[in-house]
Amino acid sequence: ITESNVTHDAGDKAGYRHFMLKEIHEQPDSLRATLEGRVTDGRVVAEAFGAGSIDILRQVQAVQIIACGTSYHAGMVARYWFEEIAGIPCQVEIASEFRYRKSVVLPNSLLVTISQSGETADTLAALRLAKELGYTASLTICNAPGSSLVRESDLAYMMRAGVEIGVASTKAFTVQLTGLLLLTMSIAQEQGKDVKSAVQLLNQLPRLVERALSLSDQIEALAEDFAHKHHALFLGRGTQYPIAMEGALKLKEISYIHAEAYAAGELKHGPLALIDEDMPVIVVAPNNDLLEKLKSNMEEVRARGGQLYVFADENAEMESEPGIQVIPMQSVPDLLAPVIYTVPLQLLSYYVALIKGTDVDQPRNLAKSVTVE
Amino acid sequence: ITESNVTHDAGDKAGYRHFMLKEIHEQPDSLRATLEGRVTDGRVVAEAFGAGSIDILRQVQAVQIIACGTSYHAGMVARYWFEEIAGIPCQVEIASEFRYRKSVVLPNSLLVTISQSGETADTLAALRLAKELGYTASLTICNAPGSSLVRESDLAYMMRAGVEIGVASTKAFTVQLTGLLLLTMSIAQEQGKDVKSAVQLLNQLPRLVERALSLSDQIEALAEDFAHKHHALFLGRGTQYPIAMEGALKLKEISYIHAEAYAAGELKHGPLALIDEDMPVIVVAPNNDLLEKLKSNMEEVRARGGQLYVFADENAEMESEPGIQVIPMQSVPDLLAPVIYTVPLQLLSYYVALIKGTDVDQPRNLAKSVTVE
Repeated sequence: ITESNVTHDAGDKAGYRHFMLKEIHEQPDSLRATLEGRVTDGRVVAEAFGAGSIDILRQVQAVQIIACGTSYHAGMVARYWFEEIAGIPCQVEIASEFRYRKSVVLPNSLLVTISQSGETADTLAALRLAKELGYTASLTICNAPGSSLVRESDLAYMMRAGVEIGVASTKAFTVQLTGLLLLTMSIAQEQGKDVKSAVQLLNQLPRLVERALSLSDQIEALAEDFAHKHHALFLGRGTQYPIAMEGALKLKEISYIHAEAYAAGELKHGPLALIDEDMPVIVVAPNNDLLEKLKSNMEEVRARGGQLYVFADENAEMESEPGIQVIPMQSVPDLLAPVIYTVPLQLLSYYVALIKGTDVDQPRNLAKSVTVE
Repeated sequence: ITESNVTHDAGDKAGYRHFMLKEIHEQPDSLRATLEGRVTDGRVVAEAFGAGSIDILRQVQAVQIIACGTSYHAGMVARYWFEEIAGIPCQVEIASEFRYRKSVVLPNSLLVTISQSGETADTLAALRLAKELGYTASLTICNAPGSSLVRESDLAYMMRAGVEIGVASTKAFTVQLTGLLLLTMSIAQEQGKDVKSAVQLLNQLPRLVERALSLSDQIEALAEDFAHKHHALFLGRGTQYPIAMEGALKLKEISYIHAEAYAAGELKHGPLALIDEDMPVIVVAPNNDLLEKLKSNMEEVRARGGQLYVFADENAEMESEPGIQVIPMQSVPDLLAPVIYTVPLQLLSYYVALIKGTDVDQPRNLAKSVTVE
């Protein structure tokens, strides 16, 4: 595999106050780099996944994704894509769970690992275990060319996100999502599905992320509301449920606010008991089929005194009013929404941490790569 | 289906201060009732799942579980069992997610719904949707004989837990787990696996739960430590990971403490940043293969000033010391541990709520059955 490389100077914050903020703003470039030469004429170029990938992708009948932390959230989003777009069953599991249980391998299963560093201990151990379990092939989505995961996998999608220094992963996550979109499309197209128009959408990603980044000042102002809170609830439905999880994780990691995410439909099955004025609720609400359901969930929160912050499609006909602050987002294709809606959540966690004065790039207790169990 | 019924007077607390406490203590009886006549000579009686179940269970090659809230946690435990014991792939999904996405149905799949009331709106809608998707058959694990889920499913496991009044589900959960164990064993035995010794273990459940209930006074004393906390983290691995989730949900529901559960291996991927003296950490630690890993997770918490409360097997060689309070649990077969370790977590949430003075049986914002979306 010959790789073009976007080079980033690992020691240079390029005028940004923190590496994390720099990396959030690098996302349009990272997305351009990851897409470069991998989409032509509405087709995913098979070489994106390494030599011999076409034969493998043609016969894949199931996908098992294994990852940890932020990468696990990327995998959770991809599950919706693999089943809906490629029409193949997909399971996603935390590496430290997968490796210690007896699991059943479906026929012609592709094992997909996701890891920025390529050295995540549990993910690597899960890959090694999986090799004895009868998977058709293994593929890693990874940002580190010479890493153990890349060396030990049959196929590799090299992320080209550039070096990520901030412990809280940002650009690696949106590039992982993009790699998983490409993988979904590639399997679909090699198996005869027409995904040309969906593939062409991918080229819009860098520009749409740029637009989302332009919300920066607005989100910085919003962060004041969170800096003195100890809790937060993130809600989403469908592919935005894992995005809500990722938003909550960012706030946890660098702001030390106890943020938790729920699939919005689960609200009445427990978390609604927690709702009061001390528990702000962040909602990711693209303008899709699930919007009406989400609005009903929001009414439940509001009726119980919860303060809502809603990242909503500008066409969703939602207005700020007492109890609800709406942050309008540019209307985007549903397929790309998980990538785009991640950006304001990253910015929110960053600006909250800034007000709280935490060590943004090196939050307490955490390491960049979890290379020991 | 003719059903013997353990009758409980719905209006009678039988001397207990709350229905929830009564229902926690009814668990040995509920477990006896659910097992009655369903296990003979080390075999699960096929009639447990209704007429015609043998033919269906013989051909099942995959299981899809759909549920909400506490019932979803029961399903998550069962996934470990179906794959390890019956050797068939199992997926578990929140009903409100399953019904709004395009999913792939594996060949000869059994759809299993779990609901105490049999009227949970999203679960019922998911069942109706699934009927159009090509599942081989549907089976419900349900506590309400004439309910919609029972009427609309091909097969039914009637829980016989007795009426449950407390909004926070307790005895229904442990009975659901038992029903799922019976279903796992039944599929395994009908497909020619020797599970006789495992099936025979089930008869120990009522007595072992009685023993766990005898920890009541000790846990009541422990509750003082939590009553003034605003956060809690629950950790488990393997089948105890969903038990940790259920423990966290109980504390949320009735104590309004923001409790969250993590698979212990995910600790370093984010939640460790939250750990300080204000975030007590509860660990469920049976004496199995994962114990050493769990101990290492606990050391991480302790090194960062977190206070640990560990429900540990009496043979796990763990002692209370500064920073770690160990509550020894009777040694139990690994297969039954999820049911047994649920009990002290139920008691903990109850006694914390009692100190906090919340409305235990009718917590704010929540209803017993979520019959609207």
